Amino acid sequence: MESNPSEGRFPRGTVVLVGGGPGDPGLMTSAGLAAIRGADVIVHDRLGPVELLAEVREDAEIINVGKVPHGPFTPQEDINRILIDRARKHLRVVRLKGGDNYVFGRGGEEWLQCAEAGVPVRVIPGVTSAVAVPALAGIPVTHRTLSQGFCVVGGHVPPGHAQSDVNWAALARSGITLVILMGVTHLAEIAEELMKGGLPPETPAAVVVEGTTKRQRSVRSTLAKVSMDAAKAGVSPPAVVVVGAVAGLELLDNTAEV
Amino acid sequence: MESNPSEGRFPRGTVVLVGGGPGDPGLMTSAGLAAIRGADVIVHDRLGPVELLAEVREDAEIINVGKVPHGPFTPQEDINRILIDRARKHLRVVRLKGGDNYVFGRGGEEWLQCAEAGVPVRVIPGVTSAVAVPALAGIPVTHRTLSQGFCVVGGHVPPGHAQSDVNWAALARSGITLVILMGVTHLAEIAEELMKGGLPPETPAAVVVEGTTKRQRSVRSTLAKVSMDAAKAGVSPPAVVVVGAVAGLELLDNTAEV
Repeated sequence: MESNPSEGRFPRGTVVLVGGGPGDPGLMTSAGLAAIRGADVIVHDRLGPVELLAEVREDAEIINVGKVPHGPFTPQEDINRILIDRARKHLRVVRLKGGDNYVFGRGGEEWLQCAEAGVPVRVIPGVTSAVAVPALAGIPVTHRTLSQGFCVVGGHVPPGHAQSDVNWAALARSGITLVILMGVTHLAEIAEELMKGGLPPETPAAVVVEGTTKRQRSVRSTLAKVSMDAAKAGVSPPAVVVVGAVAGLELLDNTAEV
Repeated sequence: MESNPSEGRFPRGTVVLVGGGPGDPGLMTSAGLAAIRGADVIVHDRLGPVELLAEVREDAEIINVGKVPHGPFTPQEDINRILIDRARKHLRVVRLKGGDNYVFGRGGEEWLQCAEAGVPVRVIPGVTSAVAVPALAGIPVTHRTLSQGFCVVGGHVPPGHAQSDVNWAALARSGITLVILMGVTHLAEIAEELMKGGLPPETPAAVVVEGTTKRQRSVRSTLAKVSMDAAKAGVSPPAVVVVGAVAGLELLDNTAEV
């Protein structure tokens, strides 16, 4: 059946994939918050609105499966096994991810593994970092006269890599904004590939680090210089990269002037 | 200053651009809901979580500027004028849009007009229909082994139109999922252009109508047949079109089986 996130408390033995938004707890949806409050088990990551873990019931089990870059992590197979195990114990299981579970959140894989094991699954979409992080750094991903769309791609697999399915040269010619998640490590190669594909070196480019959290900061640059400028600024993940005319806008919260 | 949606009640004389999500009230963010409850004036559209208008204060002014396709609407200039006028009266103004204000919501334009008039603006991003509508119809926009990204483009300006900045042929070669908003009217031309650009006719394609509402329904098809199948099914806006391997998945809520 097609889903309806507002349909109240979820049944026992179910796994609910909850998109937690980019980090600011105010960007969690009310359906997601209700699921967290009703959960017997929360399986969460390092990113996303971890402050909301204070909202879970006192007797709930909280399992951190977060991956630290180049550090320890829980393999995906183990995460799947935890979800299935707890659901089979007739518990209400929330799989909480930063952003949205279907935007590089491996939600589809978790859904398929659970369903194969006979475990019912429900999805509550979240605010994706790909749109919200640029927005709160003053960049609208679409803007009349500047961009009639945007692409969201993962930069963790660099251009030309055997596992890359992304045609960066085609994206360079697409005419729309590019938003790159997990793109800090390979930023120089990505920028190079986009310029080879035909994007002018002077195209505005921005890197937003730890977006929507209190530690948010941005680097504004151009495609030619962005990887150097990001390195100079000591940028490290998590960060969202935006390339395109809209990255030259600065629509920042100006309510402090009131 | 860079924004933080969770920083409590917003000041008088401010316009807050609130993304309401695709329609299901459970997909509104908690910061957005707080802004709605604190507003003196709500300027809203036809789409989005209109049920949440029940949450506004009894003495608040509610202004519907929604555009009915081919029907009456409030010109953008008039909307800007309303926002500025109410803010100058020291009121707390919420500009509520379906989805996210910066994804074809003209939020950037409203921001610039307000700022130019000296009116402070704040942004609270929302759940974008581009991700959430496919998700609740069983389609993850990214999925390991199937798609390492997705494009979101507006289909209201057809391929080849003088006002079109989108290179559809490049998108056809991008290797990632295509999500088309406002694409029902020109679906046949868009599908044709994508096939000319190199996307195989048998590429899975889906149309999700009135996503996340109780009236949600989907048409599953292929790129070659989708516009015919959508017409047969009597599809009309609002709808989200998804083209790519992920449109062949059906990760639907199966909790009814519990």
